[in-house]
Parts: sequence; structure tokens; C-alpha cells
Amino acid sequence: MKYATIKKMGNTKQNVASVIFLIIFKKKMKIYFAGSIRGGREDAALYLQIIEYLKTFGEVLTEHVGDPNLTSLGDDGPTDKYIHDRDLQWLQSSDVLVAEVTSVSMGVGYEIGRAVESGKKILCLFRPGSGKNLSAMIAGCPSLILANYQTLEDSKIVISEFFKK
Amino acid sequence: MKYATIKKMGNTKQNVASVIFLIIFKKKMKIYFAGSIRGGREDAALYLQIIEYLKTFGEVLTEHVGDPNLTSLGDDGPTDKYIHDRDLQWLQSSDVLVAEVTSVSMGVGYEIGRAVESGKKILCLFRPGSGKNLSAMIAGCPSLILANYQTLEDSKIVISEFFKK
Repeated sequence: MKYATIKKMGNTKQNVASVIFLIIFKKKMKIYFAGSIRGGREDAALYLQIIEYLKTFGEVLTEHVGDPNLTSLGDDGPTDKYIHDRDLQWLQSSDVLVAEVTSVSMGVGYEIGRAVESGKKILCLFRPGSGKNLSAMIAGCPSLILANYQTLEDSKIVISEFFKK
Repeated sequence: MKYATIKKMGNTKQNVASVIFLIIFKKKMKIYFAGSIRGGREDAALYLQIIEYLKTFGEVLTEHVGDPNLTSLGDDGPTDKYIHDRDLQWLQSSDVLVAEVTSVSMGVGYEIGRAVESGKKILCLFRPGSGKNLSAMIAGCPSLILANYQTLEDSKIVISEFFKK
């Protein structure tokens, strides 16, 4: 019994140490947010608001996608090769991909395609009220979660549910 | 010497047999052509002409992309899941991907992303004169050949060179 009590105490101490370790060193979740840049910046203000909410769940690696000063010229790097390689490195190092897919974007499609192949957890947010036709390659893809929404508040509920899973 | 002559004759017969075998059973090259559907059908007539030319190099699996009756509703299958799975199977079974990337398309971007991960040989055709801004994720991708062109005749030269390599 004495030995068992000591062992139990030891386990309790280990558990407390584990919790302290997790609080101090816990790896922050890395989130890759994808939204249209050169495809059109109509939704840039919305991206910014979604990114602000995503930041409550982890680190958003692509915060510049919501930058109101970033135009559809997409000059967020010295060369296209630089932008591609930087963004791809972020995508590969991320834990999840959250994409706003209402504005048609070749780059967002490319990022989703690569993330699917890498087995990333993917959430796509689409506004059917926009009148846009979402690609069947996204709408019919079984390797991602597609959520239709209307308002920013709706998207927050969807995002919150996504991170609970 | 006698043995060498017989051996040489034997080799010649084998070579002739190989050529005959190749002529009869040669695997036709499978080409996946990607172009915008739900992103917009402005370039549909051009897709049709490119597909016609591609057919001189092999079998084009996605001939429907050039169909003038296919609208931006993209109803080329009973469900989005059906379209996705069918197109993905074609993409995976293809030898090369040729994509016209001037019209912005989420699906084309997705297909390029998946093809890059699968190590496919990829040619992207872009018309800078269109005034469109090509995504940096395509323009800066080192795993594909990007060719700028203006006319259908230009695209034919590029395609011909691509298949020679």
C-alpha cells in the first residue's frame, strides 16, 4: 500500500509537470489562410476579419492575405518564384488550411490541391449568396470540409466547430 | 565471325519485331486538358481549338472542356462528387497535363496542384495580352513549364515543342 501511495504521488507529480510543460512549451497551431489575391480583392476586408478570428485558435502564417493595401497586382514578394516557394513552405509547415473560396482564384485552388495530397485538414468557406459557381473540383472533393455561410458570424461558428474536431 | 553474323541477324530480327510490336500495341499518350468551366467560359472556343491540336499527339481525356454547349453552370456530371472523382481519375491516369490558365479557375488551380504532387509533366499556357494577372503560385511554380503566347498558332508551336521533350 505504501509503495502504491508513493507511485500514485509520483504519477500526480508527473501529470502536474506535463501540464506545466504543455502550458509553457505547447506548440501553437499553425494556420494557413488562403484567399484570392490576383484573382480579385473584392473580399479582402472579409479575409481580414476571418484572419482576426482565426488568430484566436493559433498563428496565421498568411496574415498578409487580409492586408487592405495588397492589391490584385499581388506584389507581396520580390518575384513570383519567391512568393510561390515562401507560401508553399508555409503551407507545408501548417497544421490546417482554411480557404475562403467564394472569389475565384487559381492560387487558392492550387493550394487546396497540394494540401489534399499532403493529407492536411482543410476547411473551405463559401458564400452561395454571392452568385458565384463553386468549382466541382472543390465542391465535390471528399478530402475537405466545405461549409456554406452568409455572414461573418456564421463563418465564426463554422470555424469554431472545425477546430473542436 | 559466323556466330557474330548470326547474332547480328538475330538482333536485327528482334529490332524489327520490337518496331512492329510498338506500331501495333503502342500505348497512346493520355493528355489531360484543363480549362475554366465554372470560372467562366470566355475562352471555350479557344479550348476547343487547342484540344483539336492536342489530339494529334494523343488521346485527350477531357474533350468536354472545349464543348461550346458546356456553360459556366458546369453541369457535366450528375453531381459535383461524380465530376470530381471522374476528373481526378482521368488526371491520375494521364501522362501529361496541359492547362490554359488565362481565365481564372479554382478547378484548374486545384488540378495543377494535384498534378505537381503526383510528379506529372505539366504545360501551362497563358496569354499576357488578356490583361489578367496570373497567380504567383502558377507563375512561380518550378514544377511546370509556363509558356506565354498570343495566338492559336503560337500555342501550337509551344505544344509541339513540349511533346518533343
